[in-house]
Amino acid sequence: MDRIPILKMGPFLLVTIQVDMHDRLALSLQDDLAERIASTGARGVLIDISSLEIVDSFIGRVLANIAGVSRVLDAQTVVVGMQPAVAITLVELGLSLPGVRTALNVERGMELLRGVMEPDPDAVDDAGPEG
Amino acid sequence: MDRIPILKMGPFLLVTIQVDMHDRLALSLQDDLAERIASTGARGVLIDISSLEIVDSFIGRVLANIAGVSRVLDAQTVVVGMQPAVAITLVELGLSLPGVRTALNVERGMELLRGVMEPDPDAVDDAGPEG
Repeated sequence: MDRIPILKMGPFLLVTIQVDMHDRLALSLQDDLAERIASTGARGVLIDISSLEIVDSFIGRVLANIAGVSRVLDAQTVVVGMQPAVAITLVELGLSLPGVRTALNVERGMELLRGVMEPDPDAVDDAGPEG
Repeated sequence: MDRIPILKMGPFLLVTIQVDMHDRLALSLQDDLAERIASTGARGVLIDISSLEIVDSFIGRVLANIAGVSRVLDAQTVVVGMQPAVAITLVELGLSLPGVRTALNVERGMELLRGVMEPDPDAVDDAGPEG
């Protein structure tokens, strides 16, 4: 397996990360996603990491890069399904996933994206500082 | 990684199979799915196999078992994203995935499930013979 599948769900793309990311896989995911955003006109990308038990600085950088590329292509990225233990470790390591939005699960991530796509008073821009 | 994540999307559950299935993984997926169907009351299960380049008789049996368990729990199973080459090989091998519905992609699979859940004249039961 050298490709992570990207599923189109309405205006969103969904990626479930299940395997250990290595350099080449991360790069091909980034390329594939950029291509799919361009070809489908997707407005949002959901990345499910519920099966990851470790999120280190490499994965953090991959997620931030994907979010950056998506943003340039006019799509928002939401990382969903982070395990509580992963969140604790991230904070302890001082990794704050800059520029990456998060949501508890896919459903909430979709709600978040819909709110961002059709801004209303309830959907304020809650992205953190970029740095 | 010893669990395949199961994502809840409205009334459906979505599973993306990305790794080689071995006995234990297939069994735990079946158990997890049965539990999630019972706890969420899901009416449909979508299994994406777009990253599988080989579907042998073992995988075929796993898919048929999952469909069987889901059916007993009042949920329909749709296998989506099969690669054309996989479909050709399946037919050549005489594996017809009995009792398993298929759809081209996740979106069509969801349409199929919605049609099955709310039967109307356009959505006839097109499940093949069980044997």
